[in-house]
Amino acid sequence: MDLNSRIKTAVEQSILRAQSQPSPVKLAEALEHAVLPGGARVRPTILLSVALACGDDKPQMADAAAAALEIIHCASLVHDDLPCFDNADIRRGKPTVHLAYSEPLAVLTGDSLIVMAFDVLTRAGAVDAERALALLGILSRQTGMPHGICAGQGWESESEIDLSAYHRSKTGALFVAATQMGAAAAGHDPEQWEELGARIGEAYQVADDLRDALCDEETLGKPVGQDNINARPNAVDQLGVRGAVTRLTDILSGAIASIPSCPGEAMLAQLVRKQAEALTPMVPSVARV
Amino acid sequence: MDLNSRIKTAVEQSILRAQSQPSPVKLAEALEHAVLPGGARVRPTILLSVALACGDDKPQMADAAAAALEIIHCASLVHDDLPCFDNADIRRGKPTVHLAYSEPLAVLTGDSLIVMAFDVLTRAGAVDAERALALLGILSRQTGMPHGICAGQGWESESEIDLSAYHRSKTGALFVAATQMGAAAAGHDPEQWEELGARIGEAYQVADDLRDALCDEETLGKPVGQDNINARPNAVDQLGVRGAVTRLTDILSGAIASIPSCPGEAMLAQLVRKQAEALTPMVPSVARV
Repeated sequence: MDLNSRIKTAVEQSILRAQSQPSPVKLAEALEHAVLPGGARVRPTILLSVALACGDDKPQMADAAAAALEIIHCASLVHDDLPCFDNADIRRGKPTVHLAYSEPLAVLTGDSLIVMAFDVLTRAGAVDAERALALLGILSRQTGMPHGICAGQGWESESEIDLSAYHRSKTGALFVAATQMGAAAAGHDPEQWEELGARIGEAYQVADDLRDALCDEETLGKPVGQDNINARPNAVDQLGVRGAVTRLTDILSGAIASIPSCPGEAMLAQLVRKQAEALTPMVPSVARV
Repeated sequence: MDLNSRIKTAVEQSILRAQSQPSPVKLAEALEHAVLPGGARVRPTILLSVALACGDDKPQMADAAAAALEIIHCASLVHDDLPCFDNADIRRGKPTVHLAYSEPLAVLTGDSLIVMAFDVLTRAGAVDAERALALLGILSRQTGMPHGICAGQGWESESEIDLSAYHRSKTGALFVAATQMGAAAAGHDPEQWEELGARIGEAYQVADDLRDALCDEETLGKPVGQDNINARPNAVDQLGVRGAVTRLTDILSGAIASIPSCPGEAMLAQLVRKQAEALTPMVPSVARV
């Protein structure tokens, strides 16, 4: 099965399980709206690629990890889109959950998805208890306080922002989760894989800033110029477009250099290059990293 | 150490860990505001009592379970109090998190606490992996979709409510979690303990309806008459005060009868009676169950 099919199947199974009757129908539908058909699935693709590079000897563990990570990412999007945060109308070309359903159901959708992510990993404990606990530990660390994506969002309520901690937790955390969980799912030491995740996260942040500054709403599938409107720090503001592109190129070279020695090293380097192209359709030179 | 001290210590340790620097200070403070000094700690008290009745051979597992359950309960209170749900101003005699901090920080506080609860149990995996995974499974089942407290809150957005599923998930779920997690933490079969939790949950729901109908705001520490305002089903509306008291007495007798045979059986029956008194200060006859 290709990576996309593995991710799709694993995520769909979790959503189906959460929709067992009797359960409230609107919330059950909202879960599906938030997760399917999904976006580029960047994080679980990286996760499965790292698992494959590490041998992927227990694919059920990697599939559970990929589903859990994607579900957490979707939960964060639903809550980030709420009126009290980004107040976004459109996500992945569809109305956001609070517009399509309601604000209460959007809060509950995010909450239910967070729980679902941990549930998926817990169930994988039946296959390998030790790896499941390792995966649970990585996911909670990169999601909650003090250093996960909740912390990242929390920095935006501070009057003085620790920019490095902000970016690391806001965008970097789930990329570190992706590389570390991919390794842990295949029984490898996750610590060696932190740097690759962190660098991909940095690259993604800069690429997102470039897209936010250069693309139109139709290409993005969400409103543009949100960083300026919400007064968030942005690489294009700090470095200009040319400076931000140079920075992106440097980060991606570092990412490729940081890949630990493993059978799938060349394949992973290729993946990082491909992600770079996908991230920055308007800056073709980046693809030459 | 008495039960209250065990719960307090375990919860405080988790909050402290989530406040490690660098992390956003306001969110770190909001976590503490939501969890400490806390209310009656009914659910973790039941959990530890069941663990003790089952021998409590690994107290670290029971302490982790108690902290995780109380933290999930606090998370649900923070989100339930949000403007889009109950729009409550006061909780446990203090301003609610969204009033004391902000609505974004209240959403993030709930999210971070959900993650923290699963993190506490994951860490306990270092003591006993099998029990930790059992505890994680119970907590996710009783918290998320389709049958946990998220589902319970979700029923309130439906035009046709399955009343039995609604009460079981909205109030019952975390009491079932309390008895089952207490048993699982001590290495006992959690299934046998479901009925006790479900019955305590029913009793608590009826008692809450009585308090909501009969008490003043100062006694409750939160606004009264919320069920009528929010058009939620209520036992006092359906049965009258006298009928609701009779129903409460019947449920508590059933709860005591359902306690599985174990060394701590008599102690547990005493605990249920004590909880009944605490729940219904204005209906002294209930204490004679």
